[in-house]
Amino acid sequence: MALIMLRNCHSHPSLQKPPPWSVSNHQHQVETLNQQKDYDSLKAQMTILLNYFGNYVPNAWTQDSGCTLCEVDTVDLSTLDIYPNVTIGVFIEQPTPFLPRFLDTLLTLDYPKEALKLFIHNKEVYHEKDIKVFFDKAKHEITTIKIVGPEEDLSQAEARNMGMDFCRQDANCDYYFNVDADVVLTNPRTLKILIEQNRKIIAPLVTRHGKLWSNFWGALSPDGYYARSEDYVDIVQGNRVGIWNVPYMANVYLIKGKTLRSEMNERNYFVRDKLDPDMALCRNAREMGVFMYISNRHEFGRLLSTANYNISHYHNDLWQIFENPVDWKEKYINRDYSKIFTENLVEQPCPDVFWFPIFSEKACDELVEEMEHYGQWSGGKHHDSRISGGYENVPTDDIHMKQIDLENVWLHFIREFIAPVTLKVFAGYYTKGFALLNFVVKYSPERQRSLRPHHDASTFTINIALNNVGEDFQGGGCKFLRYNCSIESPRKGWSFMHPGRLTHLHEGLPVKNGTRYIAVSFIDP
Amino acid sequence: MALIMLRNCHSHPSLQKPPPWSVSNHQHQVETLNQQKDYDSLKAQMTILLNYFGNYVPNAWTQDSGCTLCEVDTVDLSTLDIYPNVTIGVFIEQPTPFLPRFLDTLLTLDYPKEALKLFIHNKEVYHEKDIKVFFDKAKHEITTIKIVGPEEDLSQAEARNMGMDFCRQDANCDYYFNVDADVVLTNPRTLKILIEQNRKIIAPLVTRHGKLWSNFWGALSPDGYYARSEDYVDIVQGNRVGIWNVPYMANVYLIKGKTLRSEMNERNYFVRDKLDPDMALCRNAREMGVFMYISNRHEFGRLLSTANYNISHYHNDLWQIFENPVDWKEKYINRDYSKIFTENLVEQPCPDVFWFPIFSEKACDELVEEMEHYGQWSGGKHHDSRISGGYENVPTDDIHMKQIDLENVWLHFIREFIAPVTLKVFAGYYTKGFALLNFVVKYSPERQRSLRPHHDASTFTINIALNNVGEDFQGGGCKFLRYNCSIESPRKGWSFMHPGRLTHLHEGLPVKNGTRYIAVSFIDP
Repeated sequence: MALIMLRNCHSHPSLQKPPPWSVSNHQHQVETLNQQKDYDSLKAQMTILLNYFGNYVPNAWTQDSGCTLCEVDTVDLSTLDIYPNVTIGVFIEQPTPFLPRFLDTLLTLDYPKEALKLFIHNKEVYHEKDIKVFFDKAKHEITTIKIVGPEEDLSQAEARNMGMDFCRQDANCDYYFNVDADVVLTNPRTLKILIEQNRKIIAPLVTRHGKLWSNFWGALSPDGYYARSEDYVDIVQGNRVGIWNVPYMANVYLIKGKTLRSEMNERNYFVRDKLDPDMALCRNAREMGVFMYISNRHEFGRLLSTANYNISHYHNDLWQIFENPVDWKEKYINRDYSKIFTENLVEQPCPDVFWFPIFSEKACDELVEEMEHYGQWSGGKHHDSRISGGYENVPTDDIHMKQIDLENVWLHFIREFIAPVTLKVFAGYYTKGFALLNFVVKYSPERQRSLRPHHDASTFTINIALNNVGEDFQGGGCKFLRYNCSIESPRKGWSFMHPGRLTHLHEGLPVKNGTRYIAVSFIDP
Repeated sequence: MALIMLRNCHSHPSLQKPPPWSVSNHQHQVETLNQQKDYDSLKAQMTILLNYFGNYVPNAWTQDSGCTLCEVDTVDLSTLDIYPNVTIGVFIEQPTPFLPRFLDTLLTLDYPKEALKLFIHNKEVYHEKDIKVFFDKAKHEITTIKIVGPEEDLSQAEARNMGMDFCRQDANCDYYFNVDADVVLTNPRTLKILIEQNRKIIAPLVTRHGKLWSNFWGALSPDGYYARSEDYVDIVQGNRVGIWNVPYMANVYLIKGKTLRSEMNERNYFVRDKLDPDMALCRNAREMGVFMYISNRHEFGRLLSTANYNISHYHNDLWQIFENPVDWKEKYINRDYSKIFTENLVEQPCPDVFWFPIFSEKACDELVEEMEHYGQWSGGKHHDSRISGGYENVPTDDIHMKQIDLENVWLHFIREFIAPVTLKVFAGYYTKGFALLNFVVKYSPERQRSLRPHHDASTFTINIALNNVGEDFQGGGCKFLRYNCSIESPRKGWSFMHPGRLTHLHEGLPVKNGTRYIAVSFIDP
């Protein structure tokens, strides 16, 4: 408990001796007898403890002054005429959601583009189109871009060796900045901050949103895998802030080119026994006494989950609402959505019909493209085997979310993003967000152009415009007959919300040219 | 077919010979051999046919002039100084719905009260309270009222003999007017009209609403029971209008006192073999050649169904919506109800809250009294075994319609009387009228005085005020919070109709004195 009370920042490496764990781990690898194992286990435990104490020499940090040594021996980039040259090594080792956004982030780093080179390893054929789109943009800004595609059939370790060596062999490469595709750098100053910290190897802390999962380990288990250190949770949650000597880090880290050309001048640090490439690198660094640091002095970004990325659909990110909710929201929810609550950005074009921004342009476009890719529009027939009873009284030309396996995502979207709006505009109404019918409707003069007056089988209905009147189609709109009130200028990405039954008899006005798409949910109760 | 084309009015009796059926029927009674039976059957069929032809001597009626002979030998009461004396024989031979209304009708007959005497046979203890109430009113208007109660234990036939003899033995009795309790005389001039027609025995046509059931038979079967004549349906439905010589009539009829003191001067015409009293009377009249007529020249009224009158409740007429829908409506539906549709008598005190007359004073009073008689108020507890789930989030102090077995009646009431209002005020909305929860709520300062803001589990809710603010209680009312709109002067018998969810968060305002009752239904969808 005394240790927790210390809350000290890590002291500067020059004040410390290397921790002894590299030796013990090495020996552990070759010993096999049971007795020997017990001995090793004890030794390993001691190693972890020593390593831990190394982070807590009690002379550098107080509650009042903070991590004073964090500022020792740093560099001030603003005083330099020319920025250090950085080679960014990018690794796309599995299908990864939101990859175009990731690649775009490389171009929005707050760093002079002329000082950057790019090495990209893409293992996935699935992502080649994204790489191509990115390259066509990036080539105007970054002169040296080396792309190793899936046709090379490199292992991850070989690719990482190649990327690191790309810097090592380049005498002008001052830093090698490894960024895996599952890293979301929200802080554009990340690269500058890491350089200014002036360590041989340093990683920015990135965590999985709302989880304790991060890109470092605070301790190792006796067999060299993850173990939780006493301070792990406090570091991840930002309760202890500083830079921390750690036995393992991954995903995103900066290494000095000079280090690669001195202590770490061999070509292969990512392949070792059967270890994962990251673990191999860290073990090698540990054994060579090259300290690895993690910084949580700033917010840098987060880690994606790539575990359940199903790429069997057309726009697969649409399905990521559960696995990567923050990124899903960032990509698909209208940037003005929060203004509904902060600035009362809700209009009421007809009595008890509310109109608010919900979808981004991308959400609209991808949903329409997904549906057109699927292509099985119902044709607006009364007989409809998709619904219970098999008969639809007021049929539209549509595809149900269920048909493209988007139903669960859609229901979650309704609970997360629609229910709060409902509560705002229908004060006191806590919807359960049950939606039995969720679908995209297609109106066009050649197919179905309009929909006769009807009520919906819902407590309330949402109706999201997925494209632009005047551009993508002429005509269309929604008329509420009982109030003799029409909305003929729907806004792409905005939704109506209106009572489904009783008061809001409504009809779909005829589309004259082009194709109008709307997404509709019947929510009840 | 030729007969139907005639469409002739019945010719006047003075132009006809008596039909021969009285003889054949009499013989039929005593013959037993099979062969004899066949012979009788044939003879009976001929009798019916002859009787039928008797109504169609083709010399009195044309499409243009109508039933000219109907006016032959009639009396004009307006020329008389003194109206004939009439003894009304009233027979309550079974529990009969709407009896107080029936008795009141006797006092609203358009006939001088001083010329009336009353003989009442009431066989039912259940009705003694009604008779007492009536007697206390009637004694001020009619000097002679003879009441034979259930304590006399008379058979129906004996009672009818007694009533008829009450006139026969009274030399001043010009007419005996038999009215059974299941007759609803809607035409107050009925008695006058029948007297003016000047027949020995004449009955006004009364039918069961919407049915072919009436108080006469157009023909007899060979064994003396009902058979349908070719003209029966046309007479009942008023397609052939006139006065009709018929072999059987009942429930309501007028007999001349003179006839009772000459051709029909014996005391007992209602008991014969095992025949019903009515059938016995008619058979006796037929055999004596005293013609019985039925008139459908005017609307006179209708017949109640007494078949399924369950008297196990307190106000049993409330349950008569299926058996006697017209009478139920007349008693329980607000007299202004139809103005909702004809004069747009609907107010909108708050947005999409509609307010309209629905219940009569009697409906309100009887429903409250029925509930208080039942007495098992819930006490407004959250735990409620009456509802699925067993837990009510916003409990009221109430009794469910189900608890008093009124649920089916109530649902029918909603379909018949509420659904049309719904369609009017919520244009295009055809409710199915499913109502899962129907109940009477009691608010009082001593028990539950108010209800916190809530939504209803309904598409729309009706809320009927069952008593008077200012008289029966102070305070109370309903506030719709989202519109900041309160209704604090509910009108007894008027209902609100408002959306249940989403838009119409509402609360019950506190009752300050007395007790407020409302009837509520949650209708969905």
